[in-house]
Amino acid sequence: MRRGFGSDNHSGICVEALQAIADANVDHALAYGDDEYCQSVTTLFKEEFGQQAEPYFVFNGTGANVLCIDAMCRSHHAVVCAETAHINVDECGAPQRIVGCRLLTVPTPDGKLTPDLVKTQLHGFGFEHHSQPRAISITQPTELGTLYTCDEIRQLAELAHSKGMFLHVDGARLANAAVALNCTFKEMTTDCGVDCVSFGGTKNGLMMGESAVMLNPVLDQELKYRRKQMSQLCSKMRFMAAQFEAYLRHDGAEKPLWYRNASHSNAMARLLENEIRDVEGVKIMYKVQVNSVFAQLPRTVWTALQQEYFFYDWDEAADVVRWMCSFDTTEEDIHAFVSALRRILKNGK
Amino acid sequence: MRRGFGSDNHSGICVEALQAIADANVDHALAYGDDEYCQSVTTLFKEEFGQQAEPYFVFNGTGANVLCIDAMCRSHHAVVCAETAHINVDECGAPQRIVGCRLLTVPTPDGKLTPDLVKTQLHGFGFEHHSQPRAISITQPTELGTLYTCDEIRQLAELAHSKGMFLHVDGARLANAAVALNCTFKEMTTDCGVDCVSFGGTKNGLMMGESAVMLNPVLDQELKYRRKQMSQLCSKMRFMAAQFEAYLRHDGAEKPLWYRNASHSNAMARLLENEIRDVEGVKIMYKVQVNSVFAQLPRTVWTALQQEYFFYDWDEAADVVRWMCSFDTTEEDIHAFVSALRRILKNGK
Amino acid sequence: MRRGFGSDNHSGICVEALQAIADANVDHALAYGDDEYCQSVTTLFKEEFGQQAEPYFVFNGTGANVLCIDAMCRSHHAVVCAETAHINVDECGAPQRIVGCRLLTVPTPDGKLTPDLVKTQLHGFGFEHHSQPRAISITQPTELGTLYTCDEIRQLAELAHSKGMFLHVDGARLANAAVALNCTFKEMTTDCGVDCVSFGGTKNGLMMGESAVMLNPVLDQELKYRRKQMSQLCSKMRFMAAQFEAYLRHDGAEKPLWYRNASHSNAMARLLENEIRDVEGVKIMYKVQVNSVFAQLPRTVWTALQQEYFFYDWDEAADVVRWMCSFDTTEEDIHAFVSALRRILKNGK
Amino acid sequence: MRRGFGSDNHSGICVEALQAIADANVDHALAYGDDEYCQSVTTLFKEEFGQQAEPYFVFNGTGANVLCIDAMCRSHHAVVCAETAHINVDECGAPQRIVGCRLLTVPTPDGKLTPDLVKTQLHGFGFEHHSQPRAISITQPTELGTLYTCDEIRQLAELAHSKGMFLHVDGARLANAAVALNCTFKEMTTDCGVDCVSFGGTKNGLMMGESAVMLNPVLDQELKYRRKQMSQLCSKMRFMAAQFEAYLRHDGAEKPLWYRNASHSNAMARLLENEIRDVEGVKIMYKVQVNSVFAQLPRTVWTALQQEYFFYDWDEAADVVRWMCSFDTTEEDIHAFVSALRRILKNGK
Repeated sequence: MRRGFGSDNHSGICVEALQAIADANVDHALAYGDDEYCQSVTTLFKEEFGQQAEPYFVFNGTGANVLCIDAMCRSHHAVVCAETAHINVDECGAPQRIVGCRLLTVPTPDGKLTPDLVKTQLHGFGFEHHSQPRAISITQPTELGTLYTCDEIRQLAELAHSKGMFLHVDGARLANAAVALNCTFKEMTTDCGVDCVSFGGTKNGLMMGESAVMLNPVLDQELKYRRKQMSQLCSKMRFMAAQFEAYLRHDGAEKPLWYRNASHSNAMARLLENEIRDVEGVKIMYKVQVNSVFAQLPRTVWTALQQEYFFYDWDEAADVVRWMCSFDTTEEDIHAFVSALRRILKNGK
Repeated sequence: MRRGFGSDNHSGICVEALQAIADANVDHALAYGDDEYCQSVTTLFKEEFGQQAEPYFVFNGTGANVLCIDAMCRSHHAVVCAETAHINVDECGAPQRIVGCRLLTVPTPDGKLTPDLVKTQLHGFGFEHHSQPRAISITQPTELGTLYTCDEIRQLAELAHSKGMFLHVDGARLANAAVALNCTFKEMTTDCGVDCVSFGGTKNGLMMGESAVMLNPVLDQELKYRRKQMSQLCSKMRFMAAQFEAYLRHDGAEKPLWYRNASHSNAMARLLENEIRDVEGVKIMYKVQVNSVFAQLPRTVWTALQQEYFFYDWDEAADVVRWMCSFDTTEEDIHAFVSALRRILKNGK
Repeated sequence: MRRGFGSDNHSGICVEALQAIADANVDHALAYGDDEYCQSVTTLFKEEFGQQAEPYFVFNGTGANVLCIDAMCRSHHAVVCAETAHINVDECGAPQRIVGCRLLTVPTPDGKLTPDLVKTQLHGFGFEHHSQPRAISITQPTELGTLYTCDEIRQLAELAHSKGMFLHVDGARLANAAVALNCTFKEMTTDCGVDCVSFGGTKNGLMMGESAVMLNPVLDQELKYRRKQMSQLCSKMRFMAAQFEAYLRHDGAEKPLWYRNASHSNAMARLLENEIRDVEGVKIMYKVQVNSVFAQLPRTVWTALQQEYFFYDWDEAADVVRWMCSFDTTEEDIHAFVSALRRILKNGK
Repeated sequence: MRRGFGSDNHSGICVEALQAIADANVDHALAYGDDEYCQSVTTLFKEEFGQQAEPYFVFNGTGANVLCIDAMCRSHHAVVCAETAHINVDECGAPQRIVGCRLLTVPTPDGKLTPDLVKTQLHGFGFEHHSQPRAISITQPTELGTLYTCDEIRQLAELAHSKGMFLHVDGARLANAAVALNCTFKEMTTDCGVDCVSFGGTKNGLMMGESAVMLNPVLDQELKYRRKQMSQLCSKMRFMAAQFEAYLRHDGAEKPLWYRNASHSNAMARLLENEIRDVEGVKIMYKVQVNSVFAQLPRTVWTALQQEYFFYDWDEAADVVRWMCSFDTTEEDIHAFVSALRRILKNGK
């Protein structure tokens, strides 16, 4: 399939990750995480997130999110999140089935929670008829491609902790956020008071594998059993670990893989934004900070464009579509895409 | 880590599977199973299991087993299985948490259920205080390396169906069984009346990936939503599909990959059995039919041997250990292992 | 405790229900619903709701709602309901934990869903990432004391059925609605296409006991097992049945107990409304149709009034309180309450 | 229905409990346990079980057992119990669905666990593939009418605590045990180290209502929310509390109601045992210590007897039946029953 702008998981495996898999494919290794690759990558995670960090590898983003929620909540708890949060709309109710808790959703203008928005849900503490607010969950970057500053995250963490609650970050694209904010993972999470993170790799060039990283030791309670019980314990885990090793490793002066891939996909989205900013008939919906561009344009145009490139309509009623760039998007892809867009805008086909 | 006899998931990825991953790593592909690799491999599954077969790729064996149970049962149902069944002892209670059902376990001499053993659990139908027996689950080959004949499977299917129940096969090592019985997957499952299968690939040379194959269309009801809800929907699914394509594909006269790998690991177990059959102080516990050897030997011997080779004690109280062979076990591995065993038996170290 | 306006479950047992308990307290009876009282009252339920109706007695309203949802939905389904619905805000997340499904909540001006409001949630059918809308749940009368007309219910049922969905009515106070609308239970439910009803008794004078009434035979599938599994199967069920027998029984020309009790509490709410309608400083929020009055008045006034009478603030931010009348509320209670209110409004205490 | 020997929940409400309900039926009371009856009876529970005891009223025995298990376990934990335990065979899988945990069942000769029997299940600690043993659950008296001595309970508690586990007592008939052992509830539970108790009332003369009594403060963590979430929070709870008040209250020298009722039903079982001990063809299976008699007799005899008296076959294959006595069983009932038995044994009808 031609490279398109459908999703950053439509791209394949970056060459470094595939090489890491191949390199790890020697001899035998203990299964289920007891191998040396897993030990080694745990050290890297601790370097990135702080010494108290404990990474739990899981298969996918749903698994990471659900494990984080399960670490924070029992069934009578509730998680405050944006109405647009992936855990709310795109997990087919996994938190409800697997953890049994409630989500308290808040409409937002841009996918971002604020302390004031969260506070609208912080009531009923101690009242047994109400699910007890126990966690705030934010997505960084959000599902709309917007970003929390470190200060904004810190404020949410402080609010959470002041109420005996936890702060979770769904970081399926955390690398893109770190590049955009020019900060480390630790500065954006641990140093802000974040309690746990769903740390993604798949959308930034890995084959598969995510990590539910516990930053608050309180959460690291018998969690390994529940990872297993949720069918999220990988047997040949070395091949996940090896990818994350390649992803996080610092080799001299060179930027690590996560940075290079995310930096590239972010740059491609900015290029796309630049190329279409002045195109009449196309409106950029949100500030382009990471690797997605949300645009409003006439339906006849985007449906015609979809004949040539795969991408998703985001809000059909509002004629808003989403264009995602990936680690393998090229400048030529962008130029060809914008050419096609301009042609259709002009000729109608 | 030196090649040992710990588990068939201590080995890595067979060269063909790794090549398949690399070959599929071109361009973009739709995520979540809507790609051409998944379409193509579905055709292969239908060839192997019959046209009504519907494979659901999942991440691991626990996921496959739980999805199969969820397809057959609601929470008030019960699954009859052997006390030694993986779903009973080695999933950390996943069926209970995820499906909410009961397991009705039966002690067996050799890991195999029989109609008579199953019937001991078939009571209380219609009595609302009792979980309702709804499925029989067998493992083929069993956790003890023993095998059901096709006739034995057929009898269990007939019993199940006569009671309005389903028959599930946990086939984490189904390939090893097919080689040993010299039959096709279809002859061993669909043709016997099996309703669904957990079809494994990881333990026979794949990197990761299993398939919950629905053989009875009654079970294929809105299952895709529950796969997603259980965190078992892979985004870059093409890399699972490509491995299974390589695994199942027939290329001219050559035996398919699953056969070659399983045939080899079975042969290595037979070689191991042959080499130790007459060794004094070692007793083979079960007929060696697939790729595992269960042996009883003095504790001082097997603990000394574990200093050199990794393997698990199976029943510590009875001094029984399990030696698993893998697709990458070599004849030299066997001979070196038996030499070490003989040396320790003789010298005590 | 003095009779107040806190809730219709602050009142005790009406004399007829207590007498029914005493009358049933002779000899032995089979447990768990196999007694003659249960058989007899089932006949009455079929008279009230139609021959296909199947009542499942449960302990309380939460139990009835959860059993109804479990009858309609599996975990990957979703229930559309008003944001103010009891199942959303006042069950501590019971549907999520017990059924594992999602609730899709809709803000409403008056607690009532409309087809248009429901349609905002009816998307994503067939998309495995989204919980599948499977049921609409309305409360009759609503938590705000407003009422659906039979036509409005019919329209919602038609919408539901056109999408392969079900319509559930949370009828904790269904008797009050039937009196207010001057219709039978059947006219308001079965005849409108309602699929199942949580039929309340406790809030209208019974000691305890509700009934999850299946009106659509499709829903009556192995439900008895799940009632038991949810801890909702009463052993000495005759004492629930006897109360409902007294509640529903027609004795000649006299109105049945449910009607007399609900008619009285409705009348008391109207009297209260009449007495305060012209009181300056008090605003009636919703049309008073059943046994509740929602009023907005200065905080200092209602907090002072709470020193003398128990009642709940409903929306603290908006200074709205709820006054519930009960089967045992007297005209004297109303007059004394209004006097106190007037006095506080005038004197501040 | 004629008084029979089917179950102690076939009898109705003892006169004192019914009077307590009527006496509590005055004025209004706060719902959901915030009333003075509940406060008062909590004091009584603390007198009976020790000051740290916290009773949670629930609707039935299933509810009490599941709440206790939920207090002790998360989903990855396991409860060790006898194969014959009510939580294993007679709750339709409620612990599995509601708590999501495993039960580790042990065959026993007489329904009683011993430390040695429990130890057969205490392995796999720390191994993430296995559910972690977290609680021992015993039934006192057992489902077979046998009794644990206080010493035996203490030994099980010590074993549990030495492994970081808890001890739960399913005390649906705890009163019968206390009478038989001539000890207080506290001596039999708290003083032995029991962590929580399902304390029954229904089977000993109450209308309905049980109490999950937390004896170990560690277990009393946010439990009220989960009681609500499990649909076990009664609105008009004063009528449960009033019954338990009557049940537990000490009035001068007179024995409390629980004692009188249980003492009577125990005595009736002993009378029954005495009357049939020397009857040829009838074998008493277990020592009669409480209010049940298990007897083996020819099938033609017990089926003929069932034409006249309701009772359950317990083990159809072994021709064992169960005869339960109740608080309302009379000496005349026993004599008439034994006469019928003798007649059928002699005449065959």
